[in-house]
Amino acid sequence: MSLAMSNQPGADYCPMTLEDLRTPCLLLDSRKMDRNLERLKGRAAALNVSLRPHLKTAKSVPVARRAMETPKGPATVSTLLEANRFADAGVTDILYAVGIAPGKLDEVIALRTRNIDLTIILDSEEQAVAVAEASRRSGQPLPALIEIDCDGHRSGVKPNDSEKLLRIATTLIAGGAIFRGVMTHAGESYGARTQERLVEAAEAERLAVVDAASHLQAAGMPCTIISVGSTPTAHFARDLTGVTEMRAGVYMFFDLVMAGIGVCSKDDIALSVLTTVIGHQREKRWIIVDAGWMAMSRDRGTAKQAIDYGYGLVCDLSGQIVPDLIVLDANQEHGIIAPRPGSNASIPDLKIGERLRILPNHACATGAQYDRYHVVNGNSEAVETIFPRFGGW
Amino acid sequence: MSLAMSNQPGADYCPMTLEDLRTPCLLLDSRKMDRNLERLKGRAAALNVSLRPHLKTAKSVPVARRAMETPKGPATVSTLLEANRFADAGVTDILYAVGIAPGKLDEVIALRTRNIDLTIILDSEEQAVAVAEASRRSGQPLPALIEIDCDGHRSGVKPNDSEKLLRIATTLIAGGAIFRGVMTHAGESYGARTQERLVEAAEAERLAVVDAASHLQAAGMPCTIISVGSTPTAHFARDLTGVTEMRAGVYMFFDLVMAGIGVCSKDDIALSVLTTVIGHQREKRWIIVDAGWMAMSRDRGTAKQAIDYGYGLVCDLSGQIVPDLIVLDANQEHGIIAPRPGSNASIPDLKIGERLRILPNHACATGAQYDRYHVVNGNSEAVETIFPRFGGW
Repeated sequence: MSLAMSNQPGADYCPMTLEDLRTPCLLLDSRKMDRNLERLKGRAAALNVSLRPHLKTAKSVPVARRAMETPKGPATVSTLLEANRFADAGVTDILYAVGIAPGKLDEVIALRTRNIDLTIILDSEEQAVAVAEASRRSGQPLPALIEIDCDGHRSGVKPNDSEKLLRIATTLIAGGAIFRGVMTHAGESYGARTQERLVEAAEAERLAVVDAASHLQAAGMPCTIISVGSTPTAHFARDLTGVTEMRAGVYMFFDLVMAGIGVCSKDDIALSVLTTVIGHQREKRWIIVDAGWMAMSRDRGTAKQAIDYGYGLVCDLSGQIVPDLIVLDANQEHGIIAPRPGSNASIPDLKIGERLRILPNHACATGAQYDRYHVVNGNSEAVETIFPRFGGW
Repeated sequence: MSLAMSNQPGADYCPMTLEDLRTPCLLLDSRKMDRNLERLKGRAAALNVSLRPHLKTAKSVPVARRAMETPKGPATVSTLLEANRFADAGVTDILYAVGIAPGKLDEVIALRTRNIDLTIILDSEEQAVAVAEASRRSGQPLPALIEIDCDGHRSGVKPNDSEKLLRIATTLIAGGAIFRGVMTHAGESYGARTQERLVEAAEAERLAVVDAASHLQAAGMPCTIISVGSTPTAHFARDLTGVTEMRAGVYMFFDLVMAGIGVCSKDDIALSVLTTVIGHQREKRWIIVDAGWMAMSRDRGTAKQAIDYGYGLVCDLSGQIVPDLIVLDANQEHGIIAPRPGSNASIPDLKIGERLRILPNHACATGAQYDRYHVVNGNSEAVETIFPRFGGW
C-alpha cells in the first residue's frame, strides 16, 4: 500500500521529533531492532544454518535489507504481493510459505520468468498435480517444498506419512516440477509457557523435518532445503543437525506476546504506537487517547497469557514503561488507558495533548495498520527517517 | 491509503467475475447495502431527524455518496484524514466525532479555511480553552459540540453535570469559538442482548442529550445540533423528540456482531471476504483457506455473544450461508474452516482452488484490511465495479 495521504506534507517531508508527528502513528526503534536482528543472526551462525527471515511482519524494504544475509536474500514471504515487492527491490531467493492455490501459479510463473528463484510449498497430491501441470505448460519447472505438520497447528503432511510424502515428491518430479525439500512451522510454540517447552518444541520441529527428509532421501529424492521456523523455536533450538535453514519474522520487532512466553524482554520490543491524550474520566481512573483498536489492531494475544496487557502496555514519550498502565479497552479511534485490573498503579497526571507510546500485543497485526515506520533510536525524541511499509494482497 | 499494488493490472482493470479475483479480497453486495441504507434513511425520516452517516466504516467516496442525504453531507468522520478525503470529494458538512487534541487544531483550521464546515467535539474545559485560543489566533471561530456520556462507555460529560456543561460552553463562547450543541454515542448498546434493552438504550441516549441541552438552553446557550448515534440505537429508537440528528456507520454493511444482537439478519450483511481453499486436514475436519486474520482482522466480536462465529461465517460463492461452518481459527494468512464447536454440520467436499465467501464479525475492522471493495449484486458472480477505500490517519 503506497499511502499518499492527501493531507500529508510532501513525500520527502520527515517530521523532526515525536512532537511533530500526527497521532496515532507507528514508531520503530532501530537500535532495538538491530539488536534483535544480530541476536538471531548469531544464533543461526552458531547452529550452522542459514537464516531466511520472514518478511511478513516488517513488509518493508529497508527493514528487509537489514534482516537478510544479502540484499538478494534469502527471504520468506506470506503473500505474492510481498514476493513481488521484494523482487522489485532486488530480492531473488524467496520462499512463499503459504500452501499454493492453483489459481496463483500464473503469478508464480511470472515471477520466475523474471529470474526470481521463488519456491512454493504444498501438502497434497492435488497441488502437486497442478504444480507439475503448470510447469509443463509454462516450460518453467516450478520448485516446491513439502510442508510438514510438526505439531498439529495448521497445514502439512505428517512427518511419518512416508507414502504421502513420496507420492507428492514423485508427482512433482515425474510431472516436470522441481522437488526441493521440506519445511515446517512450529506454530504451537506460541502457546508455550516455559523455556523447557520451547526447547522441546524446537527439537520436535527439527525432528519432524529431518524425519520427513530421511524418508524422501531413502527413496532417492534429495532434499536441498530442510527448513524450520518460528520466532520462539528459533530462539530456543539447541541443535539443528540435519536442518539447512531457519525462518522467523516477528523477532525483528518482538511484542508483548513474545515477551509473555519468555522469548524476549519487554525492553527488546522495537515497535510502539505514538498516541495523544484526548480526555479523562477521572472518577474511573481512565485516560482517553487517540489510539484505539484501529491503531493497535484488534489483536488480544496477551489475553490468554499470565499477564493480560489489554490492547497494549503504556510507555512515556521516551519509551520508559509506566508499570501496570495498559490500554484497558479500545473503540475504533479511542483507547482507554487504565491500571491493569488488580493493580494499584498510580495514574500519571497527564494534560490533554500529552503524548505516550504503547507497546503492542502483536507486532504483525499492529504493523499492518500503518503505511510507514517512523524510525527512532533509543530514548531520543528525534525521528531519524521514515521506512515505508505496504499491506494488502 | 491508495494501494497501487505493483503486481496488479492497470488501475482501470476490473476483474469480471469472482473467479478472476486474486484472493483474499473484499466483496460488497450493493443490493444489500442499498437496502440497509434505505432502511435507516426511512427511520430517520419517520423519526423526524436528519441522518448524518458515519463514514468510518466505509471510508469510501462512492459508498458515502449513496449514504448521505446530499453529496455535500451531512457526514460524520473518525479521523482528520477522513475529513480531508471527503472534503476533497465535495463533502462540506462534517462532524469529527472524536475528542479534539490541541495539536490537531491547525488541521481543523486548514479545513475550515477551505470552507469546510467541520465541527469538533470536546468534553473538558482544557480543550475548550485550546479551541477558543485557536479560534482567536486564526481568526476562524471553530464550532464545537460538547460530548455527553450517556452510558459510561468512554468519553463525555455526565448529562446532569450542568456546571461543567456551562463552564465548557461559556469558555467556548467567551473565548471566540462557536458553541453548537451536544452529541453522544450509546456505545454500550453493542452489548445489548434483547430488543427491550436496545429500545431502552436508545431512549437513554436520547434523554442524555436532551437533558444536557436543556441545562444549556436554560442558561441561554442554544443548541443547534442535538446529535445521537450508534447503529443499534438508530434502529431501535421509538421516539427522538428533542434530537436533531442521528449518526450510524456499520449499518451500511452490517456484520455478525450486529446480527448477534438482533439489529439485522445475517442476510443483511453486505460485506464478505472472498477466499480460496488451499488445503485440508481431513481427520480433523479442517479446510484451510487463504483468508487468515490479516484478511478477516483480529476482531473476535462474536466471542462474547450467544453464537461465536470464530473469525467468520462461511458462505458458498453465491453468498449462501453454509450452516454452522465457521473460520474456527486463523493465522496471519491461513484460515482454518471447521464446524462450529458442538455442531454436527457436515463438511462440504471442496477441491483445492475452490472459492468461498466469509461473513465478518465486524465490518469496520475487516474493511480496514483492504484498499478496495469489489462490488457485486446479490448472488451473481459478476463483479460490477471497484469502489476504492482508504485507511490510515
